[in-house]
Amino acid sequence: MKVEVLTIGTELLLGQIVDTNAAELGRALAGAGAEVVRHLSVADRPDAIRAAVAEALERTGFVITTGGLGPTRDDMTKREVAALFGKALEIDEGVLRSLEERFQRLGRTMPPINRTQAEVPAGATVLPNPRGTAPGLWLEEQGRVVVMLPGVPSEMRGLLAEEVLPRLARRAAGSVVRSRTVRTTGIAESALAERVGAIEDEIAPLTLAYLPSTDGVELRVTAWSLREDDANRRLDAAVAALRARAGDHSYGGDGVDLAAVVLQQLRARRARLVIAESCTGGLLGARITSIPGASDVFIGGVIAYDNVVKSGTLDVPPELLEQYGAVSEQVVTAMAEGVQRQFAVDAALAITGIAGPTGGTPEKPVGTVWHAVRFGDQLRTLRRIFPGDRGEIRARAAQAALDLLRRLLAEHT
Amino acid sequence: MKVEVLTIGTELLLGQIVDTNAAELGRALAGAGAEVVRHLSVADRPDAIRAAVAEALERTGFVITTGGLGPTRDDMTKREVAALFGKALEIDEGVLRSLEERFQRLGRTMPPINRTQAEVPAGATVLPNPRGTAPGLWLEEQGRVVVMLPGVPSEMRGLLAEEVLPRLARRAAGSVVRSRTVRTTGIAESALAERVGAIEDEIAPLTLAYLPSTDGVELRVTAWSLREDDANRRLDAAVAALRARAGDHSYGGDGVDLAAVVLQQLRARRARLVIAESCTGGLLGARITSIPGASDVFIGGVIAYDNVVKSGTLDVPPELLEQYGAVSEQVVTAMAEGVQRQFAVDAALAITGIAGPTGGTPEKPVGTVWHAVRFGDQLRTLRRIFPGDRGEIRARAAQAALDLLRRLLAEHT
Repeated sequence: MKVEVLTIGTELLLGQIVDTNAAELGRALAGAGAEVVRHLSVADRPDAIRAAVAEALERTGFVITTGGLGPTRDDMTKREVAALFGKALEIDEGVLRSLEERFQRLGRTMPPINRTQAEVPAGATVLPNPRGTAPGLWLEEQGRVVVMLPGVPSEMRGLLAEEVLPRLARRAAGSVVRSRTVRTTGIAESALAERVGAIEDEIAPLTLAYLPSTDGVELRVTAWSLREDDANRRLDAAVAALRARAGDHSYGGDGVDLAAVVLQQLRARRARLVIAESCTGGLLGARITSIPGASDVFIGGVIAYDNVVKSGTLDVPPELLEQYGAVSEQVVTAMAEGVQRQFAVDAALAITGIAGPTGGTPEKPVGTVWHAVRFGDQLRTLRRIFPGDRGEIRARAAQAALDLLRRLLAEHT
Repeated sequence: MKVEVLTIGTELLLGQIVDTNAAELGRALAGAGAEVVRHLSVADRPDAIRAAVAEALERTGFVITTGGLGPTRDDMTKREVAALFGKALEIDEGVLRSLEERFQRLGRTMPPINRTQAEVPAGATVLPNPRGTAPGLWLEEQGRVVVMLPGVPSEMRGLLAEEVLPRLARRAAGSVVRSRTVRTTGIAESALAERVGAIEDEIAPLTLAYLPSTDGVELRVTAWSLREDDANRRLDAAVAALRARAGDHSYGGDGVDLAAVVLQQLRARRARLVIAESCTGGLLGARITSIPGASDVFIGGVIAYDNVVKSGTLDVPPELLEQYGAVSEQVVTAMAEGVQRQFAVDAALAITGIAGPTGGTPEKPVGTVWHAVRFGDQLRTLRRIFPGDRGEIRARAAQAALDLLRRLLAEHT
């Protein structure tokens, strides 16, 4: 099945936001056996929207749009598509009711302007959007389909998963495009490539891609247009081979967060975790608590951004700070010990470093980060000099801290 | 001047990489006075590439492509464009020489396959690419222009800045596409639209877009194809009008982070800030410390995820936790007071809430968040019920906490 994607928004063409919806649609649709043959972006202009939808229908007959479903005047997708199909816009009472209820739940009355969001082209199927005010719409006539989704990524994603993909799966027959990933961390792309070696011939017709990010290098293996059972069997084998070659650098598969892996390791040991962070300023805690259910393992911690917090709250001896500096093995060790002692728990993580852009020295350049982990009375420390800007250095530091704990816990299974 | 952008690559349509080139081209071209009227992505397929370029030339007459210039079999842009113009591919001796020199510098001999990268359509201008092996190409005939750039972002960026934009600026003769933004928070899109009212006629020919995110709603006003001084004058006036109508919901312009605004307010008062966060788990601290130079204002704080930290480290009376629950005005107030007292500073922020997906009750549904701010002995508290998933609720809570402090400090200028 072939599909065209049309993302609508002047801000996309001006490059003021990066079009992540297009990529997400491409991935999800491939998984459902639908091939995106074109992706087009146009501005919030009635003529541009109508022409783009008309062309896509002419060529491919199936188009998914994002954007232009909000309540304001620059939201015009619905109107243009309805006109193209020769349909009137009508108030949908169900949508109107759920809009009013949504505003009530949030303790507000619905502004009159939102009433336009309950207008749907006659004959369209409403795709309920519990995450926002704009419902999705599925308009189909004589084999021509236009699916309209909101542009807000979380709303688009929800509607795609809950409403669009199930409908597509029922239409597609048999062959799929499917990917699996092996996530690694603590090893550079080139070093990982040497470990993995020339595996491409072995896994063909599957393909392999190396995708580096601040969390590490993801190995993505893809089966193209195979029958589902054949694709799955080949992917299983390829993933097993890749995991074996990546060794202890591999920590999980598709979408697995290293923080979730560590929380699970600790949960299995009935251990609880505290943290002390300086240069990451809360980012490590945010990573850990982004995992639902973190609260049975994670107690909290101290953001020791200023040295007064390191010495005051964490009991880091001022003479260590003076003699070795805040970014040192001695201080990060004292931070981990201090926070572990204060909360009397089994596991503690600490980070101190220089995230930049200023503060580097020849001995401790920007990117220098010390990590420490305590589990019971065991201690591991790690110094890394990370590349990248402030944001990347901080993200890499949080990931490296989690990985240090993962490796320590893995030694004690 | 109107331009179409064509990004070529199967991986884009499958969503395996996000198309950052398109956004970057959009931004850079607008700055040089060229308006991107369409962005299209197609797969590495000869027919798809040729059809897309042909259509764009027909419609707009000027197309910039990225991708498909490498040495391998899936790189076919050059061939298809040459065929479309009825041109042969010819070896360019200059390109061949620089390719060979490049490989020599890296201590390798050039593989025969790379020789194809020295082939250029007859009559094309070669755009030298010192960052990679594929040069850019500018093919122009009878008013039709195709500019071919490599897909590697750093190479694309270099060629764009050094070769393409200067040529475009010479053509554009003064006119630019330029945007400005007014960032707002604490007000829903529809309510903001009612406040702003029907400003569109007043600011025409400038256009206005409402862009909601978890940080609030951004108002983006754009001047299209005006002379630079005229565009700037009109944008100044439009921004002033929008700011006036948005009132105290507006906190800054293009790219301004609310955390940076708050840090600057505190810096001007020589005040220092501490935080206590529960459901956000470090996210508020991460937001604040993402701003370079935060350390002269921000001391640190306590991640009070578990109640033992709230009562232990922050001195929240256990009877408050028992009687009102952790998510209550009483507890958030005690958290702010506790952390302010502990670190003896002027300003404190506290957050406690239910980020979900579990933990909600009919009285306190998922999304319920209490915020408190202390400045000296002044106190403000705010309850919000945020929509969205766990990540969105946490992001909205951090933003609302910062906004609460911004508003309190603004009262005391």
